Amino acid sequence: QCCWVRRSNFLLFGTTVLYLSFLMLGAYMFWWLEYPIEMQIRDQLRLLKKEFLEVFPCVSDEGLEDLIEKIILANNRGVSAANNVETEPNWSFGQAFFFSGTVITTIGYGHVTPLSRGGKVFCIVYGLLGIPLTLILLTAYVERLMIPTTWFLQFLNSKFGHLYQSFNIRMVHFATVATAIISLFFLIPAAILSYLEPDWDFLDSIYYCFISLTTIGLGDYIPGEGTDHKLRPLYKVCVTFYLLIGLTFMMLLLAVLYGIPQLNLGIYCLLESDE
Amino acid sequence: QCCWVRRSNFLLFGTTVLYLSFLMLGAYMFWWLEYPIEMQIRDQLRLLKKEFLEVFPCVSDEGLEDLIEKIILANNRGVSAANNVETEPNWSFGQAFFFSGTVITTIGYGHVTPLSRGGKVFCIVYGLLGIPLTLILLTAYVERLMIPTTWFLQFLNSKFGHLYQSFNIRMVHFATVATAIISLFFLIPAAILSYLEPDWDFLDSIYYCFISLTTIGLGDYIPGEGTDHKLRPLYKVCVTFYLLIGLTFMMLLLAVLYGIPQLNLGIYCLLESDE
Ligand SMILES: [K+]
Ligand SMILES: [K+]
Repeated sequence: QCCWVRRSNFLLFGTTVLYLSFLMLGAYMFWWLEYPIEMQIRDQLRLLKKEFLEVFPCVSDEGLEDLIEKIILANNRGVSAANNVETEPNWSFGQAFFFSGTVITTIGYGHVTPLSRGGKVFCIVYGLLGIPLTLILLTAYVERLMIPTTWFLQFLNSKFGHLYQSFNIRMVHFATVATAIISLFFLIPAAILSYLEPDWDFLDSIYYCFISLTTIGLGDYIPGEGTDHKLRPLYKVCVTFYLLIGLTFMMLLLAVLYGIPQLNLGIYCLLESDE
Repeated sequence: QCCWVRRSNFLLFGTTVLYLSFLMLGAYMFWWLEYPIEMQIRDQLRLLKKEFLEVFPCVSDEGLEDLIEKIILANNRGVSAANNVETEPNWSFGQAFFFSGTVITTIGYGHVTPLSRGGKVFCIVYGLLGIPLTLILLTAYVERLMIPTTWFLQFLNSKFGHLYQSFNIRMVHFATVATAIISLFFLIPAAILSYLEPDWDFLDSIYYCFISLTTIGLGDYIPGEGTDHKLRPLYKVCVTFYLLIGLTFMMLLLAVLYGIPQLNLGIYCLLESDE
């Protein structure tokens, strides 16, 4: 089946080495880009504490450290000690709906997390049921969406089939679908988010869309966290639907990519073993 | 092809309604389980601030709020103001390697995140290249692992094929593979983690393994964050390999499950449209 590589295990070994180098390259690049900023923030914090102790001389070092430790502990558990965000609870309906959605899509921002033992057990059970359910449902929608996508490919074939090779037409087809999906689920939402979120610029918003729709979900940018207004629960529910629909179209994009036979041949050689 | 449901769109509609109810059930349950604990932590924080102001009467309300806000801002950016964790930077090699690994596996704990514009852009590019590479590499390993797994199924068929139905043998096969994978990648690692991590009990460790190997990656539990010793970079690298190998075996488990034809028929009816 694979004529140009007989010993596919060597290819797999090579890819594994490449992968480890890629991880180390990432480690080096992130260290190089982020380390100076981290040190800068650390210095600012050290200065902040020093100034606080100077302005309020009655405060003891231990007293301040103890306060800071407890504030950080609570913050890592998702509860902020700052007064300005104390108006709305984390586990309001909108927030809890958003959390449920991010668990079963495996995005998992983790800005709020279950703290009780019951919450953790429920989270496991909920994921066990919800993740397969999400996969099945989104795949069912992708199957439906493949129908017009395939029509479009057939249209391109009937129109340009006598002029260009099948592979080229498939590439044009993929590029068109990709452009549509990137516009609808990255560029337009990013423009809306950079308008709605006070502290996000366009790069932040694109970064948010990318990190979310790849299901990485780092949780450093989350819509509706900065501002605190009445429509926030509704906003959270809308974002949940954006994520679900966006993920469906990301799966559609992958399905179109997998549908190109010439692209998959190389990968097939790597995947298939000699036996 | 699907005899028992002709109008598959109704089935899809039903599943969508079920899915939305499932999301709302999750929202309700998380709210019910977590809301009281959140309120409790909020009360503790309010008391903590009140006591701090009583013990150190020279501190003004505004001064304290300002300090807390800045500490929380830095903490949300991944930098802790507490003295006891100030010894090792976030972006050491081990940590950055771990971060790279969690980005391209889409786990994305998000306990540290890129702060610079360059870091965010690099994170997008790194994910764009790394996520497909991870998928291809892990799938290649799953293909290799399917060989002994299929041998085992053939062995079961030759031994019990005259006694039991094909479906029952496949279920026993799946159950055996599942038990092995759960033991090797959930129970044993959880036992090791609950021994190594000072604040984790067995439930926390199982919860960590589940949240990680489903790629949800909430980031509330991360190995090697509590303690601060010299082997931490090595520990982080080991955890990265645990995650990569664990994800491979999770994919193997899914591949075995998808291999059961009788199970997939029902799902197939939902996926396939009438046209
Ligand atoms: K994730
Ligand atoms: K995550």
